[in-house]
Amino acid sequence: MTFQNFDSPADRTFAKRHLPLLRTELTRQELDGFIIPHDDEYQNEYVPAYADRLMWVSGFTGSAGAAIVLADRAVIFVDGRYTLQVRAQTDGDFFAFADLVNTPVAQWLSANVGKDARIGFDPMLHSVDGAKRLRAAAEKANIKLVSVDENPVDAAWRDQPARPKSPVVPHPLEFAGISSEEKRASLASSLQELDADAFLMTAPASIAWTFNIRGQDVIRTPLTLARALINADGAATLFVDTDKLDGNVRAALGEGVRIESEEALLAALSAHGDAKKTIAIDPAQTPAKFADILKRAGARIHECADPSVLPRAIKNAAEIKGARDAHLRDGAALTQFLHWLDEEGPSGGVDEIAATQKLEALRAESSLLRDLSFDTISGAGPNGAIVHYRVTQDTNRLLKIGELFLVDSGAQYVDGTTDVTRTVPIGAPSEEMRDRFTRVLKGHIAIATARFPEGATGSQLDTLARMALWQAGLDYDHGTGHGVGSYLGVHEGPQGISKAARAAALKPGMIISNEPGYYKTDAYGIRIENLVLATPPTSLPGGDRPMLGFETLTLAPISLALVVPSLLTQQERAWLNAYHQRVRNALSALVPEATRDWLAAATRAI
Amino acid sequence: MTFQNFDSPADRTFAKRHLPLLRTELTRQELDGFIIPHDDEYQNEYVPAYADRLMWVSGFTGSAGAAIVLADRAVIFVDGRYTLQVRAQTDGDFFAFADLVNTPVAQWLSANVGKDARIGFDPMLHSVDGAKRLRAAAEKANIKLVSVDENPVDAAWRDQPARPKSPVVPHPLEFAGISSEEKRASLASSLQELDADAFLMTAPASIAWTFNIRGQDVIRTPLTLARALINADGAATLFVDTDKLDGNVRAALGEGVRIESEEALLAALSAHGDAKKTIAIDPAQTPAKFADILKRAGARIHECADPSVLPRAIKNAAEIKGARDAHLRDGAALTQFLHWLDEEGPSGGVDEIAATQKLEALRAESSLLRDLSFDTISGAGPNGAIVHYRVTQDTNRLLKIGELFLVDSGAQYVDGTTDVTRTVPIGAPSEEMRDRFTRVLKGHIAIATARFPEGATGSQLDTLARMALWQAGLDYDHGTGHGVGSYLGVHEGPQGISKAARAAALKPGMIISNEPGYYKTDAYGIRIENLVLATPPTSLPGGDRPMLGFETLTLAPISLALVVPSLLTQQERAWLNAYHQRVRNALSALVPEATRDWLAAATRAI
Repeated sequence: MTFQNFDSPADRTFAKRHLPLLRTELTRQELDGFIIPHDDEYQNEYVPAYADRLMWVSGFTGSAGAAIVLADRAVIFVDGRYTLQVRAQTDGDFFAFADLVNTPVAQWLSANVGKDARIGFDPMLHSVDGAKRLRAAAEKANIKLVSVDENPVDAAWRDQPARPKSPVVPHPLEFAGISSEEKRASLASSLQELDADAFLMTAPASIAWTFNIRGQDVIRTPLTLARALINADGAATLFVDTDKLDGNVRAALGEGVRIESEEALLAALSAHGDAKKTIAIDPAQTPAKFADILKRAGARIHECADPSVLPRAIKNAAEIKGARDAHLRDGAALTQFLHWLDEEGPSGGVDEIAATQKLEALRAESSLLRDLSFDTISGAGPNGAIVHYRVTQDTNRLLKIGELFLVDSGAQYVDGTTDVTRTVPIGAPSEEMRDRFTRVLKGHIAIATARFPEGATGSQLDTLARMALWQAGLDYDHGTGHGVGSYLGVHEGPQGISKAARAAALKPGMIISNEPGYYKTDAYGIRIENLVLATPPTSLPGGDRPMLGFETLTLAPISLALVVPSLLTQQERAWLNAYHQRVRNALSALVPEATRDWLAAATRAI
Repeated sequence: MTFQNFDSPADRTFAKRHLPLLRTELTRQELDGFIIPHDDEYQNEYVPAYADRLMWVSGFTGSAGAAIVLADRAVIFVDGRYTLQVRAQTDGDFFAFADLVNTPVAQWLSANVGKDARIGFDPMLHSVDGAKRLRAAAEKANIKLVSVDENPVDAAWRDQPARPKSPVVPHPLEFAGISSEEKRASLASSLQELDADAFLMTAPASIAWTFNIRGQDVIRTPLTLARALINADGAATLFVDTDKLDGNVRAALGEGVRIESEEALLAALSAHGDAKKTIAIDPAQTPAKFADILKRAGARIHECADPSVLPRAIKNAAEIKGARDAHLRDGAALTQFLHWLDEEGPSGGVDEIAATQKLEALRAESSLLRDLSFDTISGAGPNGAIVHYRVTQDTNRLLKIGELFLVDSGAQYVDGTTDVTRTVPIGAPSEEMRDRFTRVLKGHIAIATARFPEGATGSQLDTLARMALWQAGLDYDHGTGHGVGSYLGVHEGPQGISKAARAAALKPGMIISNEPGYYKTDAYGIRIENLVLATPPTSLPGGDRPMLGFETLTLAPISLALVVPSLLTQQERAWLNAYHQRVRNALSALVPEATRDWLAAATRAI
């Protein structure tokens, strides 16, 4: 069994085949149009098959976007990453294309919809914040926004897959580090500070962390689709499809957790309203429908950030140990892959899919592997320049001499989540490639060696990763780093390294990626990514203020054939040599003998 | 005549003497309390003497703060810069002290004021945004916020100074670069885009720029206190004390500008309301009272950023020429001062006031000098560690061998505003001082040499200035740079270099300060400040994207005795040597012969 497949789940006929079905349903519901976001009811990054409504209606498989379908026309909004992909996947005869960032939905509605038109939206698929933005747009465009009870896509989608029903598995204390009871007691005390009676927890990752459970309801992230109410006294109700629970997990959840069906949540919210309770919700995550029910029933709503997000981001000692163990294991697999690639790559017989499968097979040798943490980005030559590339049978490309190969991959082990990118030359690289790679490496090292005071955010560090590129008139169009979960989502907040100002202060114990890059369209892509762990404030000799820093977790050689030593400062060279020595020392015993020799050469001092 | 004086305008008896007068007036107006912000009616940085109400009531002379006076107690809120100063200036028997940032006003009111108490505020002294925050705080504390018609401080202050009446002077096109008519036409077209009939301009700096006029109603910034309405057809009404205008300035203002008394504004706002006009206002600048009048009269209010702020920040060719000329002149004066300091400083006979006066006298040799741009910060030894230090007769300190002397000063020339900081050792500096100075210099050079893409903000550059300090466990508690006007305010937005995320994108033509520092409390302060000009996007050899950068405007030697050459990279040393060569080439002909020889040595290559 392998995790990753290389098929396209959709095709260009989707729009032509499915739009008429949807429009019939819109007529039945007396709607002039309907808004279809990519997001599902859980604001998942990976949506389960039944919830891929945007794909069903348009054929578009990207991870973000939205469509508006009217009786006589339709539009799909995507961001800059997907401008090309949407035109390849979605039939332009049926959909207009718009930019999600630059074309306000309000503007499109004003131009395309008559006054007082009835445009539907599903309040389960929009967060409280999202619905507020939608209402503002509708008001601006003078249209009537109609909150639907039954999603017309679901009504029209005849072979819609069933909701997932994967078993819930307890996440052992050995890896979780803190019992669910203790976590809930701590959440309860934050609720008391907020003067709230309960927190409505709607994000599956928050539930997985809080209750120390994992599932397989979506791919790549070990989640159970569920909701919870955490009370200010530490008791909690978990609303979950009870078929997913066996006696073992019920015992692990303990007596402090009441179990109810997911459908029972709506009644529970009404009851809280009737009792005039104060319910805390995170407006960025909670479906607008839940807030509507609470309000209608008379509850007082207190908007706040999900109180489990920050403690989840700050890893405890067991999670840090797990991360280190997982990275040793993952580094050994990746190193064997890089050795194999070095030998087989130049043969002309390796393509992107074969490379992906080889890497997955090496990772799968560990019994602790549960999944990949995302579909491997395996980009040869020009495909490497597509930042969110996912290889399919249609795009699969041979690795060729003189080109670069970029592989961005990660694993879900039961003790930790990994995410690593290496870029290697097939045969001899050009001088330009080496120059660019070395500048990316300088940015990577600037983050790896940064010191920063308490309270500093990733936004304050982002430019360090770019300066060597900026000085040469180069840049990359993505953030420098994202938070990573502990056997949870490979993208999690609140920390991040990017120019966006919303990033939270970096705290010791946070895990974050360090991944500057450079992309030359139609030619090659370069990215060097390690995960790093923020370390506690430390006094430096002669310093006034303790400074945080990073410990690099990822262990795998960085291709020396792409490094121009003369472009590195002495300190940068010292970091690279010390890192490589650490990699060699850590991994030599974990790889076969032939790889050991290769590793010694690959990590030699320069 | 000299600009700067060294007296304290207030003393510790102010609270004791003035609080009873104010309380009598509060009783008369049937108020249980009154809020006294530092801000005046114009949101000026330097408030005119008549408007220094916070000082009159408390004795506190800092540039930011607020007080609340009740019948039986009073509190003064200041930020971290003024924690020590407020305790020295304000009698603790009469005022409690609170932190402006960490103690919410709402919390203080809740704890100290009975329910339904009537607390007054003057809607002329609070911006629309400020009044909104005040109302939220009052609601939270369950008190009645009363908007007063007559400010009780003004009623109680018997010898309140008169409003300033300095003559308005036309700012010649030679220095302004663009005629007022053209500026108003451009503002008018932004109003048309906003669908607004007029913009209510309330900031004196915006009026000075828009109408090409200057005045002397406040110290240090050449402003006329006035208001204006800019209409969408480019016509405008200037509301100003007509005694300030002679025939010359009336002619310069031209026929497109109607002149009315400042008192006539209220009636004009009511008339706009009666006519159901849409009036654009900047809620961060406009007194709440004006918005209240507009609303009450039926106007539609459109909130936006003052449309003159961005074009004012982006200097035109004439303003850039003026800035370069002003910096040559200023650099020559400062260089003569540094030469004098080098010879006289170690004698033991120079104190902070004497140094300040010497520097002012050298600047005053130019007939183009109109004022200082702020009170010179002249800090010897431990006084240098007080970031906002202003020397008075009481604090005046001799320059001593083995100490550092920090001088931060600037001038208002008719063609440009300057702001420069140099730190010099008196006698031989310690190794620690040299290490710290060199790290500050590395940060300064990182900003001076930075390249950055279009859209980048100063927030993205701030960390470059700090990294060499952070790596050693050091930091400084102020921003790295602020925008600077053209013969206008020495602090102006919207650009800035700091971790605060609100900074606007850097645009070619913006002038900004580059001033990292390091402060050791009770020992010494270090700051190196030049003004820099953002340069247009330029293609770099081999680069993909044009990059902006900075041209350093300030010309004056940086003390080599404080530089540890081995701590600099080759590129940093090359920058310092090239900068010093430029300083020498530019200034040699402008200084006396003895200074010329000193300058050659002070700017030698290292």
